[in-house]
Amino acid sequence: MTNEPDSARGEHLTHTDSSGAAHMVDVAGKAVSARRAVAAGQVRTTAAVIALLRRDGLPKGDALAVARLAGIMGAKRTPDLIPLCHPIALHGVAVDLALTDDTVEITATTRTADRTGVEMEALTAVATAGLALIDMVKAVDPAATLDRVRVLLKEGGKTGLWERPCERG
Amino acid sequence: MTNEPDSARGEHLTHTDSSGAAHMVDVAGKAVSARRAVAAGQVRTTAAVIALLRRDGLPKGDALAVARLAGIMGAKRTPDLIPLCHPIALHGVAVDLALTDDTVEITATTRTADRTGVEMEALTAVATAGLALIDMVKAVDPAATLDRVRVLLKEGGKTGLWERPCERG
Amino acid sequence: MTNEPDSARGEHLTHTDSSGAAHMVDVAGKAVSARRAVAAGQVRTTAAVIALLRRDGLPKGDALAVARLAGIMGAKRTPDLIPLCHPIALHGVAVDLALTDDTVEITATTRTADRTGVEMEALTAVATAGLALIDMVKAVDPAATLDRVRVLLKEGGKTGLWERPCERG
Amino acid sequence: MTNEPDSARGEHLTHTDSSGAAHMVDVAGKAVSARRAVAAGQVRTTAAVIALLRRDGLPKGDALAVARLAGIMGAKRTPDLIPLCHPIALHGVAVDLALTDDTVEITATTRTADRTGVEMEALTAVATAGLALIDMVKAVDPAATLDRVRVLLKEGGKTGLWERPCERG
Amino acid sequence: MTNEPDSARGEHLTHTDSSGAAHMVDVAGKAVSARRAVAAGQVRTTAAVIALLRRDGLPKGDALAVARLAGIMGAKRTPDLIPLCHPIALHGVAVDLALTDDTVEITATTRTADRTGVEMEALTAVATAGLALIDMVKAVDPAATLDRVRVLLKEGGKTGLWERPCERG
Amino acid sequence: MTNEPDSARGEHLTHTDSSGAAHMVDVAGKAVSARRAVAAGQVRTTAAVIALLRRDGLPKGDALAVARLAGIMGAKRTPDLIPLCHPIALHGVAVDLALTDDTVEITATTRTADRTGVEMEALTAVATAGLALIDMVKAVDPAATLDRVRVLLKEGGKTGLWERPCERG
Repeated sequence: MTNEPDSARGEHLTHTDSSGAAHMVDVAGKAVSARRAVAAGQVRTTAAVIALLRRDGLPKGDALAVARLAGIMGAKRTPDLIPLCHPIALHGVAVDLALTDDTVEITATTRTADRTGVEMEALTAVATAGLALIDMVKAVDPAATLDRVRVLLKEGGKTGLWERPCERG
Repeated sequence: MTNEPDSARGEHLTHTDSSGAAHMVDVAGKAVSARRAVAAGQVRTTAAVIALLRRDGLPKGDALAVARLAGIMGAKRTPDLIPLCHPIALHGVAVDLALTDDTVEITATTRTADRTGVEMEALTAVATAGLALIDMVKAVDPAATLDRVRVLLKEGGKTGLWERPCERG
Repeated sequence: MTNEPDSARGEHLTHTDSSGAAHMVDVAGKAVSARRAVAAGQVRTTAAVIALLRRDGLPKGDALAVARLAGIMGAKRTPDLIPLCHPIALHGVAVDLALTDDTVEITATTRTADRTGVEMEALTAVATAGLALIDMVKAVDPAATLDRVRVLLKEGGKTGLWERPCERG
Repeated sequence: MTNEPDSARGEHLTHTDSSGAAHMVDVAGKAVSARRAVAAGQVRTTAAVIALLRRDGLPKGDALAVARLAGIMGAKRTPDLIPLCHPIALHGVAVDLALTDDTVEITATTRTADRTGVEMEALTAVATAGLALIDMVKAVDPAATLDRVRVLLKEGGKTGLWERPCERG
Repeated sequence: MTNEPDSARGEHLTHTDSSGAAHMVDVAGKAVSARRAVAAGQVRTTAAVIALLRRDGLPKGDALAVARLAGIMGAKRTPDLIPLCHPIALHGVAVDLALTDDTVEITATTRTADRTGVEMEALTAVATAGLALIDMVKAVDPAATLDRVRVLLKEGGKTGLWERPCERG
Repeated sequence: MTNEPDSARGEHLTHTDSSGAAHMVDVAGKAVSARRAVAAGQVRTTAAVIALLRRDGLPKGDALAVARLAGIMGAKRTPDLIPLCHPIALHGVAVDLALTDDTVEITATTRTADRTGVEMEALTAVATAGLALIDMVKAVDPAATLDRVRVLLKEGGKTGLWERPCERG
């Protein structure tokens, strides 16, 4: 079953050694393989903000483009931001935004053919897009919240396909 | 009442001009004043992960330090990540982590004496600390989730004190 | 006359010392003052590309937004890119794009209240926006050219207003 | 004929999807191959500035070295600056500067063995070198202009050799 | 003998061409191979500082973690800092700190499977960790010194194993 | 006496709180004042390398310019590299290189008018210049060593002038 960490994995944090010291794990021995990750999240705001974002969806309305680009560029900055992440050849990033009544739903897909997975890049894309959205709307809704930033799916590499179990929401 | 955006603010997004084009708003006319922001969020994970983090809380256990430092350094990268944020003189950043049964609660406080608020820096600190935590634990809990990244309080500048209204959670 | 460098200025390069060694000039003694710069440039391409950019100017068409944001974010990266530029408090950046029959005209305005001018930030915004546009259209027009990146105007600081002399194009 | 975009390429911008949203195109399926690009440009200035640059070409004269290094380092920052550019393994960068009566001619050559071309890296090297030169001379010639930043040649990858057509200047 | 540069290597600096101009050497023709480097250095300070660092080695004491993480993150920034260094796929970084009576001994190991060695990454890790330590202790010992930053060993690539000769200390 | 830390300062590390957790200290309450720092260090190498560097000191010889510029640009990256350093308005940086028989002596001077000292910026300039020099010469002398990176002097701020005590070397 791919959805459950095995007991061996459960015994230690991979980014700290036996003394607890942080290190960037050596992945030179891992195989280069095609890998993909999908992450999602949402910005919860008010109906008034969503109306403004929809209105802004007219020609030259850049609000959603700002968030999409922040997400794509954020994915490229992942190894700068996450201390123990490996620099990686990022082969594709897409950030999709969908408006509901009072949320902006964010989905990011990242791809590589390298030695480590790209779920941190997908999560960083979602978080950065969400923060950029909050920055766009904060004068109107200072209480806007970034919520449920999580991996939905990853595939490739030795562990193969992982899909988020339903009970984890 | 400081907790409600006034109707004037509600009419437009401050980061786009009348044609919808994004710009970095001119703040040269705003006063330099002492400003502070507090943001919070949480990483939801499993009891097993929390146990590992507690065990790591022994001498030389770096897991929580990684998250704290990622948050502090992330706050400094805010203008690189958020397209329309101003580069700012960041005068202080603290990131506090508290473990519950199955979450890590993150609080970040940022301070400046400059022309714009520091709530985006506080939110970025929380988000980056949360992403770094997920990176630390993802081999054990690939479903770990960053949740409720939000501003609790900001003060300073023309608008004075803003506290998060209870009904927004 | 502000448009002509005086002979004193003409005698040496300010970024190299008497031995020719590069240094970042000490500006601590210069006064903080409101400063503004306007720079411009153009991307020369084909009528077919301009038609695509106009068509893209529909809802969700991000091509021009990409260039505007690249310009704004590029302005913030100026001290990282230009070896002897000072890090500066950038208070406002706007990037304007206008389509003609076979060019995209780029104008950038930058503002600060600091010790040095912001013309390098304005020029970097124009150049980065132009490069991002070329990247957007290069599959269709690999010969697209960035041209005439130049300062139109700067004001503030000890030297006051400078406007580009007509004979310099 | 390699110099003309085919009609298929002409129909859409590769960096936006069918809805117009920007994305970083997935290149995982493209072959790794040796690739090279040559780009050029010029800084137009005054004869007096060129004389200063020549005089600076004495021992320890760093002015041209600053521009060469800015170009090389700028090439490495391309994925940070150009929103939809892929991070790439840049295997070689050379920036050549030649002085004429009133211009500095800039040529940059970039090489890789990766999945995407390196023409944006070559263009960014030229533009960054040019901006650094303008910064060096701006106290003497505030009207210095960066001109004709363009790709001369690229080779490698599926499309093979492309040379700039004469009629595009 | 691998410990002595051969006379051919001794005749020129590899990062400058025959005219003396700096360039980033083309490594596209070099083979991808597993490479490793070990570098070391020390921060010399006072017994009182070492006592503080030991005391800080209690639960939640972040001082040494700050240095370890600064070293790891610094290694990733090497191509940003060292003008002619190639961006590289860094596959592993470990930074080890050991306290003596009045020094902190720093050792960094870096690994890759790429076209160039990783000794600059190892040296940058040591130097950045050392600077971060000095920053931590400078209020107590403003005279703390970073010393003996050097490569101990490198292996992989065409030149194979190199070990530091004893007479170079 | 300014050369001795007082006992109060000696009792704790300023970058960790009472629980040992790292934070970026709040400096908003500190006065803006003119500050200067001078740091030094040396690269120890062979007479053969020094001869090459001297020969390179001819027209267009960029080797020393690379080190000077790496130092200046490195100073600007200090808050990116040193986790708990404040971003600061850096008003001037000069890096001086002097060749002896078998060393390159590096001195860096940094200036600001801000709330914190600039000794970390001066140290980072020295270390980055030194690392860039080692990178330039490593093919000829793989054993080149960066040594004695230390603050010579700092002035400004509440603590006034501090000069390195002789007995600390």
